[in-house]
Amino acid sequence: MTADAAIQTTREQVAALHAELVRYGLVVWTGGNISGRVPGEDLFVIKPSGVEYDELAADNMILCDLDGNVVPGTLGSERAPSSDTAAHAYVYRNMSHVGGVVHTHSDYAAAWAARGEAIPCVLTAMADEFGGEIPVGPFAIIGDDSIGRGIVETLDGHRSRAVLMQNHGVFTIGKDARDAVKAAVMTEDVARTVHFSRQLGEPIPIPQEKIDALFDRYQNVYGQKPQGAL
Amino acid sequence: MTADAAIQTTREQVAALHAELVRYGLVVWTGGNISGRVPGEDLFVIKPSGVEYDELAADNMILCDLDGNVVPGTLGSERAPSSDTAAHAYVYRNMSHVGGVVHTHSDYAAAWAARGEAIPCVLTAMADEFGGEIPVGPFAIIGDDSIGRGIVETLDGHRSRAVLMQNHGVFTIGKDARDAVKAAVMTEDVARTVHFSRQLGEPIPIPQEKIDALFDRYQNVYGQKPQGAL
Amino acid sequence: MTADAAIQTTREQVAALHAELVRYGLVVWTGGNISGRVPGEDLFVIKPSGVEYDELAADNMILCDLDGNVVPGTLGSERAPSSDTAAHAYVYRNMSHVGGVVHTHSDYAAAWAARGEAIPCVLTAMADEFGGEIPVGPFAIIGDDSIGRGIVETLDGHRSRAVLMQNHGVFTIGKDARDAVKAAVMTEDVARTVHFSRQLGEPIPIPQEKIDALFDRYQNVYGQKPQGAL
Amino acid sequence: MTADAAIQTTREQVAALHAELVRYGLVVWTGGNISGRVPGEDLFVIKPSGVEYDELAADNMILCDLDGNVVPGTLGSERAPSSDTAAHAYVYRNMSHVGGVVHTHSDYAAAWAARGEAIPCVLTAMADEFGGEIPVGPFAIIGDDSIGRGIVETLDGHRSRAVLMQNHGVFTIGKDARDAVKAAVMTEDVARTVHFSRQLGEPIPIPQEKIDALFDRYQNVYGQKPQGAL
Repeated sequence: MTADAAIQTTREQVAALHAELVRYGLVVWTGGNISGRVPGEDLFVIKPSGVEYDELAADNMILCDLDGNVVPGTLGSERAPSSDTAAHAYVYRNMSHVGGVVHTHSDYAAAWAARGEAIPCVLTAMADEFGGEIPVGPFAIIGDDSIGRGIVETLDGHRSRAVLMQNHGVFTIGKDARDAVKAAVMTEDVARTVHFSRQLGEPIPIPQEKIDALFDRYQNVYGQKPQGAL
Repeated sequence: MTADAAIQTTREQVAALHAELVRYGLVVWTGGNISGRVPGEDLFVIKPSGVEYDELAADNMILCDLDGNVVPGTLGSERAPSSDTAAHAYVYRNMSHVGGVVHTHSDYAAAWAARGEAIPCVLTAMADEFGGEIPVGPFAIIGDDSIGRGIVETLDGHRSRAVLMQNHGVFTIGKDARDAVKAAVMTEDVARTVHFSRQLGEPIPIPQEKIDALFDRYQNVYGQKPQGAL
Repeated sequence: MTADAAIQTTREQVAALHAELVRYGLVVWTGGNISGRVPGEDLFVIKPSGVEYDELAADNMILCDLDGNVVPGTLGSERAPSSDTAAHAYVYRNMSHVGGVVHTHSDYAAAWAARGEAIPCVLTAMADEFGGEIPVGPFAIIGDDSIGRGIVETLDGHRSRAVLMQNHGVFTIGKDARDAVKAAVMTEDVARTVHFSRQLGEPIPIPQEKIDALFDRYQNVYGQKPQGAL
Repeated sequence: MTADAAIQTTREQVAALHAELVRYGLVVWTGGNISGRVPGEDLFVIKPSGVEYDELAADNMILCDLDGNVVPGTLGSERAPSSDTAAHAYVYRNMSHVGGVVHTHSDYAAAWAARGEAIPCVLTAMADEFGGEIPVGPFAIIGDDSIGRGIVETLDGHRSRAVLMQNHGVFTIGKDARDAVKAAVMTEDVARTVHFSRQLGEPIPIPQEKIDALFDRYQNVYGQKPQGAL
């Protein structure tokens, strides 16, 4: 595939995936954002800042280099990219296997994040998808690399593709943008179920060896074709 | 009806019923699955693995024998069936009156399951539909017959058509796939209402003889035609 | 209006109003039901039993006399009316100013009902709509007049148009079917909000004279034309 | 723009924005209302009283002067304006920088309001949007200027564009109607997330200097063009 074709395909995928954030109720107003690395290029595509979900389309997605700078003269480049672009760029620069990044303030996950509390692995679906707890990253605010660094330091070497940034929200990574969106959807789903379970008592922990067995199987067997662990 | 016609009808019903899981918010992403026994045959139809709900159709449902093996050369057989196929097959082999099986991780039901706690019968709708509490089945993971065995051992001889598998989610059975879907919908509904009720105090138990009277009446009178108890 | 025209209009209104129960998430599957008195006649129109919401239409609504008997030979009379028909009939026989009755198991209201606890009046919207708390009616099961009697005994002389039947769900009344549906929608809304408020502390009571002032004003001024208090 | 054109544009915007209240689940039945000041005129446009959301359109919005009187002979003037019109008018008379006002009883925000408790700033999104906690206004009932006065006294000089009126609901203000709607949407979103977080423990406070930095940045940088702080 040529670079132009790869860019166009990534634009289309990233634009379309934003509808999943709406479908699953993970975002309100213009909040949240998805980016996708352009395969074979040192580039990624990300949502513009402050634009409504109904208006997102391939042509207004914004193309950035791995320092988070908009590539001048490209489609959509007259607009500002997502205010979280620096964090996405930091992840792409420092985690070469990551092909997609998602950020939301989805309610149940953000509630755990506001307490600075990891979500314990008490559901087989969490063992499958995240291989254990969903960890908490540091408190960090926009303006420098501290959010990106917090994501990478928390997730590097961790099975989880999701991190709860303290007092903030969720960042998820994936082998591509779709995989990161799936992680964002599943994060909110397990954040909600474990929240409900804890409201009326203490969920039963799953033994570590069972978590390991579930994670290994799910990463290698589930679905229509094998998925490599991220 | 010929076997081919029965298979085709079951494919259509099972495919269409998946929309009810979406409508009632019982599933996210590609999670959850429905199967239906083909009337008069030692066969059942089940959802493919890892395929999106929007893409499900009669022609990509998968036909399996009662050992859970895909019937070669049939429509959809190029795909893998649901990763829960072995559990469905175990139920069909061991509960001859069951014509449909549903599996979800619906949030409130899964929250009870994560605590390993049965849902007490404190609503007349639960007495009607389940004849008492919704019981908990054992912790069991994918890979052998332990999930199927846990379902059957818990539900065999029990009035409830639903079981909360510990740390996992819900399996429901029914006289046909539609009846099992109804049980899945009602399970989440009562799991949610009893959860809410317990959050602010203790729900009032319903006396056993009233539960018995409600269950008996509902199984025999409700709706447009009598339904045999499962 | 002729009796036939009044019946037809009532059929259309009652059928259409069921969509509001779905829109506001007050019902699942085939649960819940609405009836409307035929103006000027000793008749009412009610939902058939066990029929899906998508299939409800004027022509399959069922016409009953005030003893709850289906009027033979009328449209829809080949089907059974709602299993709650006796309760609706009892209300119409004993509360001549009631023109509509609604029954749901809406989740938050049913959660209060399962504890047998009235919803306290801590929201100005409750004072407006219900004039005070939403009361609890007795535990009663289907099979005789005990549900209908419980509704009437609880609501007769009470400002509230809604009653929480213990361990069961909600019945609401109104000057017509639409007014009773509004009461059902508002009941769940306040049941939910007061539930949320109580989860984190104790809501502040509203002084009785303020409740009285709000109720009086709302019943006489709000909306495009004055509404008589029920 | 002529006065007539400005009125028409405001009618269209205010009518259309009501759909956002429905989309985000902030209102039920005919509850809630939005108004917008007509740029350059001592007039505002507001929702009619007791009319369904599906029927709202530019032509049935109601034009009022800053005392809350309907302008006779204008489109929609045969109907009564929202019963909260006096409160909106009070805000426009007393806060000249306000171009839009929204009122809802959205559930989580109203739950905080029923306890008379401010929502603490424990989310970076709250710091961005509200610059600190969302404050509580006094208990006040319809009939005189006490609601409007309570809104103005609470929000005047406060960073927050939202106030929780005790036992009642939310009023938000904005530079225009759209900005006030955004504030209403974000109020419910943070009310919900902080509620969830508090249910299982104590959220971590955000240091004041970080709140200040986030609020300053968001008001000046976010989105496609700079927004002045209200």
